[in-house]
Amino acid sequence: MLTDRFEADYLLETPIDPARAAETMAGEQSSGTFVAIPGETPELKSRAAARVVALDILERDVPGRSLPSNVPSPPHERITRARVTLSWPLANIGPSLPNLLATVAGNLFELKSASGLRILDIRLPAAFAAAYPGPRFGIAGTRRLAGVEGRPLIGTIIKPSVGLGPAATAALVDELCGAGIDFIKDDELQSDGPACPFDQRVAAVMAVIERHADRTGRKPMFAFNLTGDLDQMRRRHDTLLAHGATCLMASLNSVGLVGMIELGRFAQLPIHAHRNGWGYLSRHPMLGWSYVAWQKLWRLAGADHMHVNGLSNKFSETDDSVIASARECLTPMFADKPCTVMPVFSSGQTVRQAHGTYAALGSTDLLMTAGGGVMAHPDGVAAGVRSLREAWAAAIAGIPLAEHARTHPELGRALEIAA
Amino acid sequence: MLTDRFEADYLLETPIDPARAAETMAGEQSSGTFVAIPGETPELKSRAAARVVALDILERDVPGRSLPSNVPSPPHERITRARVTLSWPLANIGPSLPNLLATVAGNLFELKSASGLRILDIRLPAAFAAAYPGPRFGIAGTRRLAGVEGRPLIGTIIKPSVGLGPAATAALVDELCGAGIDFIKDDELQSDGPACPFDQRVAAVMAVIERHADRTGRKPMFAFNLTGDLDQMRRRHDTLLAHGATCLMASLNSVGLVGMIELGRFAQLPIHAHRNGWGYLSRHPMLGWSYVAWQKLWRLAGADHMHVNGLSNKFSETDDSVIASARECLTPMFADKPCTVMPVFSSGQTVRQAHGTYAALGSTDLLMTAGGGVMAHPDGVAAGVRSLREAWAAAIAGIPLAEHARTHPELGRALEIAA
Repeated sequence: MLTDRFEADYLLETPIDPARAAETMAGEQSSGTFVAIPGETPELKSRAAARVVALDILERDVPGRSLPSNVPSPPHERITRARVTLSWPLANIGPSLPNLLATVAGNLFELKSASGLRILDIRLPAAFAAAYPGPRFGIAGTRRLAGVEGRPLIGTIIKPSVGLGPAATAALVDELCGAGIDFIKDDELQSDGPACPFDQRVAAVMAVIERHADRTGRKPMFAFNLTGDLDQMRRRHDTLLAHGATCLMASLNSVGLVGMIELGRFAQLPIHAHRNGWGYLSRHPMLGWSYVAWQKLWRLAGADHMHVNGLSNKFSETDDSVIASARECLTPMFADKPCTVMPVFSSGQTVRQAHGTYAALGSTDLLMTAGGGVMAHPDGVAAGVRSLREAWAAAIAGIPLAEHARTHPELGRALEIAA
Repeated sequence: MLTDRFEADYLLETPIDPARAAETMAGEQSSGTFVAIPGETPELKSRAAARVVALDILERDVPGRSLPSNVPSPPHERITRARVTLSWPLANIGPSLPNLLATVAGNLFELKSASGLRILDIRLPAAFAAAYPGPRFGIAGTRRLAGVEGRPLIGTIIKPSVGLGPAATAALVDELCGAGIDFIKDDELQSDGPACPFDQRVAAVMAVIERHADRTGRKPMFAFNLTGDLDQMRRRHDTLLAHGATCLMASLNSVGLVGMIELGRFAQLPIHAHRNGWGYLSRHPMLGWSYVAWQKLWRLAGADHMHVNGLSNKFSETDDSVIASARECLTPMFADKPCTVMPVFSSGQTVRQAHGTYAALGSTDLLMTAGGGVMAHPDGVAAGVRSLREAWAAAIAGIPLAEHARTHPELGRALEIAA
């Protein structure tokens, strides 16, 4: 266990000697610079410099550079890929997430000596666990508020994403609650625009939800998107509390790290963290961020639910990548402070993904949000919700989907359309 | 001029019909989704849907996809590149920068139908100018505080980046102020680590700077890196005010948008905005962000100085890209609220970049920070600073560098090393 240092792993592609490229990274992100300078004494280096603690060659003679530079490739350039681990003294930055970011993911990705660079993981000493709240509700707190145990939370998203006013949103929520849904979320495009003001939406939706809660004894969880400037988020949060809401949603890349840390400190509700924009951070396999590294920042800042995409999703991500992300959300970060969060599966999710998701994850601690999978059931929304629960019951019990469908008509009918 | 809509331009690469790919983008980022849904009525669409307002084909039969997907390329796939402009109703989000981000740069970059996507520019209605502060000091305010008119501010960075304590930092600042420097900044790796506590560094450095200001009547500007959690940044900001500091620095990608908006609201000093991490947002030419689009967010949030890299830099960026970024910083965003900021040139800057920078930019409203260009002058730091000023005087007067060097020995000596 690290105590006074922190580490980061990288996938590095370089047209120069990989050992030299790794040393350049370590130098650039600590006491070194492009040229030798008199102030960088051996004593200072031993105190403050980052160290290359591992370097494993993965691939030699890569056919071409992944990323361009202002210096074109010479003929017969030899390009190598390696996994590199750097280690820094905690004394350089202290347990500060924003300064961690500038150190492990600062002026590195533009280096000429890297024709590809992706941060794969970070490992932090316990001082970070002491400095940040982590998820205040996490899996257990979310289950308690939603009243769902022993199976995933089945959810959906308000669609159309934008364009419905408060009353139309509440009418849709009424239908969904009547259908037995566990969880509903605003779309990330809907926060507090004049066409659907936040306060009016919350009032209209929570009136409906409270009515269903009175009827069933269980309050469906609605994640209201409060993304905005800090004063707006504070005000919207208080509106949620005043109306008995049980979840808030924020877009991580819109709010940013310092805003999310602040939200994590004042929020008295679970934080449903949306990762929209993730593609620009990750879509090229030799650039940017691995979700394994990235999600640690937000868990420590206080996120309770983290989006991970879904199996057979409508986007470009592979199933392996989705499952790696989801597993990481359930993997403890610190011995005394696990900071585990609920992975949120979404995008094209239907009854057909339950078995594969359960087999790959080995857990029901997740939230599955389905759009068409709920709304497009031929027998209506209630049948859509029931079919998803049935699919999960079958997955958990180890019963093949088609077999379970024979005795569960809603599931059978769902399979007719989710081809 | 836009009043009730906002727009974004994209570079799109797609293996499908580009018109259909553009419509998918518009749908996904407004009222549409992957499947047709009953709630998306023609009336709702006309009110809330994004529109494709321009589509120009740039390149047909691109040899291969720039970015991978979970569906491999079929043989003989026809890939096209196009410039696409989308337009949204302001009523969807209101004048909110965080929600703008989720809309123009949200779940777009992961679309299967895009094998490349880069946001090139955004255009905002005046409501955004009214909702956000913009730079409070900008070019004129920075010049007034630094006491520099008619030429660029010549600056440098504390190096080694980390490892110097408060006293050693102050000793270096003393030497630099004695040499006549205009501007000094902390490195982005140095904020408030235990090895160089912020408050002690500010106290030690400002004592030195005030002594030089008393001597010369001009206070060199020091940008103290206060990057941290919000409460820490507030406290550090107050420390700066108490010690008579004239600039603060923050790392944009560490603080994030909501944190920067909040900093912009309370800061009573110019904000020197560092873009470390920019590489992961921009390094692949068919993914992520153009600086032209990205810098508008931060200018509106309140940044006064924006890093743009430098000509002949040590990183991978081309000179054309650097100049396009710098020009944009000097281009007004709104008729009544230009939000222009000082571009900061850095990385490998020496006397050799003055002429090219001035020729390309046509302005002296910039800050040039040189490391080796100041510190490595054979006759010392004062000669280094003087040589840079002489290079700029020659550039402004239209005198070739070599000619000016014959009558200005510090410049001549600088040319001997900056080969």
